Amino acid sequence: MAIPVEQFFLDPGHQGTLQRQLQEIVASGILAGRFHQGDRMPSSRGLARHLGISRITVTLAYTELVANDYLSSRGRSGYFVSDSAPRPPVFPPSTRSESRVDWSRALGQRIPEAAALNRPEDWRRYRYPFIYGQTDARLFDHQNWRKCALQALGARDFQALTEDSYGRDDPQLVDQIIRHILPRRGIVADPSEVLVTLGAQNALWMLAQILLTQRRTAVMEFPCYPALREILQQSRCNTADIAVDEHGLPPDAVPPETDVLFVTPSHHCPTSATMPMARRRALLDRAEEHDFLIVEDDYEFELAFASTPSPALKSLDRAGRVAYIGSFAKSLFPGLRLGYVVAPEPLIREMRMLRSLVVRHVPGHIQRVAAYFLAQGHYDAQVHKMARAYRDRRAVAEAAIAANGLEIAGAPNFGGSSLWMRAPEGVRAADLAERLRQRQVLIEPAGPFFGEGRDPGTHYRLAYSSIGVPDIPEGIRRIAEEGEALRRGTA
Amino acid sequence: MAIPVEQFFLDPGHQGTLQRQLQEIVASGILAGRFHQGDRMPSSRGLARHLGISRITVTLAYTELVANDYLSSRGRSGYFVSDSAPRPPVFPPSTRSESRVDWSRALGQRIPEAAALNRPEDWRRYRYPFIYGQTDARLFDHQNWRKCALQALGARDFQALTEDSYGRDDPQLVDQIIRHILPRRGIVADPSEVLVTLGAQNALWMLAQILLTQRRTAVMEFPCYPALREILQQSRCNTADIAVDEHGLPPDAVPPETDVLFVTPSHHCPTSATMPMARRRALLDRAEEHDFLIVEDDYEFELAFASTPSPALKSLDRAGRVAYIGSFAKSLFPGLRLGYVVAPEPLIREMRMLRSLVVRHVPGHIQRVAAYFLAQGHYDAQVHKMARAYRDRRAVAEAAIAANGLEIAGAPNFGGSSLWMRAPEGVRAADLAERLRQRQVLIEPAGPFFGEGRDPGTHYRLAYSSIGVPDIPEGIRRIAEEGEALRRGTA
Repeated sequence: MAIPVEQFFLDPGHQGTLQRQLQEIVASGILAGRFHQGDRMPSSRGLARHLGISRITVTLAYTELVANDYLSSRGRSGYFVSDSAPRPPVFPPSTRSESRVDWSRALGQRIPEAAALNRPEDWRRYRYPFIYGQTDARLFDHQNWRKCALQALGARDFQALTEDSYGRDDPQLVDQIIRHILPRRGIVADPSEVLVTLGAQNALWMLAQILLTQRRTAVMEFPCYPALREILQQSRCNTADIAVDEHGLPPDAVPPETDVLFVTPSHHCPTSATMPMARRRALLDRAEEHDFLIVEDDYEFELAFASTPSPALKSLDRAGRVAYIGSFAKSLFPGLRLGYVVAPEPLIREMRMLRSLVVRHVPGHIQRVAAYFLAQGHYDAQVHKMARAYRDRRAVAEAAIAANGLEIAGAPNFGGSSLWMRAPEGVRAADLAERLRQRQVLIEPAGPFFGEGRDPGTHYRLAYSSIGVPDIPEGIRRIAEEGEALRRGTA
Repeated sequence: MAIPVEQFFLDPGHQGTLQRQLQEIVASGILAGRFHQGDRMPSSRGLARHLGISRITVTLAYTELVANDYLSSRGRSGYFVSDSAPRPPVFPPSTRSESRVDWSRALGQRIPEAAALNRPEDWRRYRYPFIYGQTDARLFDHQNWRKCALQALGARDFQALTEDSYGRDDPQLVDQIIRHILPRRGIVADPSEVLVTLGAQNALWMLAQILLTQRRTAVMEFPCYPALREILQQSRCNTADIAVDEHGLPPDAVPPETDVLFVTPSHHCPTSATMPMARRRALLDRAEEHDFLIVEDDYEFELAFASTPSPALKSLDRAGRVAYIGSFAKSLFPGLRLGYVVAPEPLIREMRMLRSLVVRHVPGHIQRVAAYFLAQGHYDAQVHKMARAYRDRRAVAEAAIAANGLEIAGAPNFGGSSLWMRAPEGVRAADLAERLRQRQVLIEPAGPFFGEGRDPGTHYRLAYSSIGVPDIPEGIRRIAEEGEALRRGTA
């Protein structure tokens, strides 16, 4: 690569000659690994003009650097970092002085650390990855996504691609959400009631910021999505949680002092329980009675293959008490960071102002690509393909689980992408996961769902979204084998 | 479009027959504008299976809807929303009940409203748009951006495109920032000292969240970037501001109780003053003496065409007191929402946790496209092209300003994309802007930079980043003409 002149600065405080200073800049750049062997130096004319010094000074510095083997001259082509230039040390000494700031004091707010996911970064290298929430290249319609991306990169969409849109969302995406997606959840919404977010997590975070203060009380499910617990912890509100049963959250247990309830009614995260219609109505009645708001996280609803999902809680919400969160993380892919909130207009207006402050808006191109993917029907095809594949994987997994005597603690009756499992009696799920890693199997111990100090150690999540049918039986056989070995060891 | 079966739900509480209920669903969908003329209804077999009802019920409902002109039958092709179906009313009556929530009470935190930008959404339709910070299609290297985007959409980058990367950044982008960009600002950084953000605003917001509390004091420049003032307002810290002079912020004026100073040393926003080297050193000394941190917003540094920019304040920072913010909003485009922070590792670690909580990470595809654009040299070519064009536009603007007797209050001596202008004596910049709109000219009155209640009404920003050379003289002539008319009117 050609080293641009902009990388050169003169230091007015430098003690030596200009030539000496230039030589030091080049040498230290090479030793620090910033200039690589074969990189072309700026022309002597260009560098001299840039620095406002005489050209002969540059030439003399270059000549000296050639003599010292830092540079080599290739005649008219100019000067290059020489192939025999000193290599930067593998562990270069830090040229920076130590920070003299007392960071333990300087940081005004400490952010709660995310619960360790215990998932290796290189999970794709494992043969049996029963991990949740990542994208399977075999199922994603890469080709049509690419086509839509290209279309959105066209001249006609230049504005949507490039503009600082301040508070506004892409009207085409909002239209698709309203016409294409929400009706499947029984939800009718006006554009003023929809906000595009950087994924469901961003939506949960914004709602917590706006609805909660240190004097308010948020109630969540137990166990619960770990990121929600961290978000509530950061907002410093009072919190309480309610144990779910096989029908999800029991409405009677919601305390009267609740200000905001966070709930996953369509299938509880992580146990997969679905709240029956009667409970949903009872929950809305209780919200009305005790004047609290409900945040409904409707994750993964698209992946219904086992039975028709019931409509969202939001669709029954006559009083405007429910903020509904949807996401494209599971139906498209999580790296997209795209989701949305449907809520009464006063709340959406406030969220829009908060979003403007924090990130301005969701990148324009991303919104437009998703809008095209939806409008052209690829989204429907994609979701159908995924649902079919998950149904097959689920059937194979359930058969293998039965054959190997493993215990399912909860299975989403509408479909979904994971099973909630109980480890064998006396076996800690974390230990099981640890041993399985050595055997190319990844499972997710459920500690983070219970929270610090409250993990019974008994459960794990078994997702089939990133593992194909052929590998499932052997993966499950290994889980059973290691579980049995651990059980015997502890017995 | 084909209406998917997923849009149909049965209501167990419905009073009428199943057939009646189906008819109502279809009719209300048409009347609410969700089903459009020509949309195809689900097949009777498919819908019956989906709802778990008999096929004859569906057929009878459809037949009745044909009789009522909602649907038309096209033989074997099925049923469609009829061309003579009732059209939805232009202002449909809301089917939702009024929200019974007292939102003035329910919102725990009120977000400060962004200062009105006073820029029409359709600014691209104006002939003389002297507006700041948007992208000029004539200057953006759309073709190579598209190529890089396509490359990043390829199978090899599937993981970078799709994965939920939690706290991690794209290592390729971080590498490009460290090797390709920071050296131009004299900054040496390790990957652990760099965080990718959703633009400079997101970086400012995160720094304010982490470094400030209600008991701490933030100091900003006066006048100042309006979004920064809003961010500090939301963080509820104590604030003070310091008037800048022609050399930017005077270090002696920074009060000893300062915890964090926000500053734009390379060219002050909005007056364009550049802080001389001696002041920069004095500022760092003062930070050391009174133990405060500095946030350096180095916006737009790439657009240097008039002279070599001085290195960033961060490059002189031996004590680790400076957090440096860079952005691709001006060199690429603002809708990208891509920026970065360089700061000591303890601060970056905390920011990374906050970012994980709020948005997880910056969309993977966006990071990778920018990395390719940088690595393949398109970024350099792009920046050079912009700088050349801005130099020409600036020269034409300055000539026209001189010829028409307008007054420049501040001009970036390194280049940049705008001029800081003083309105004629006795003329309010806001009035001038208002009149100019009628004449196809957009300028930006500077009120938001001064803050509520403190706008002297005297200044406006004149940007040349979105207007071509041929239109500049006439645009400036009109500004002078309207300014003169207003001055006479008030004289």
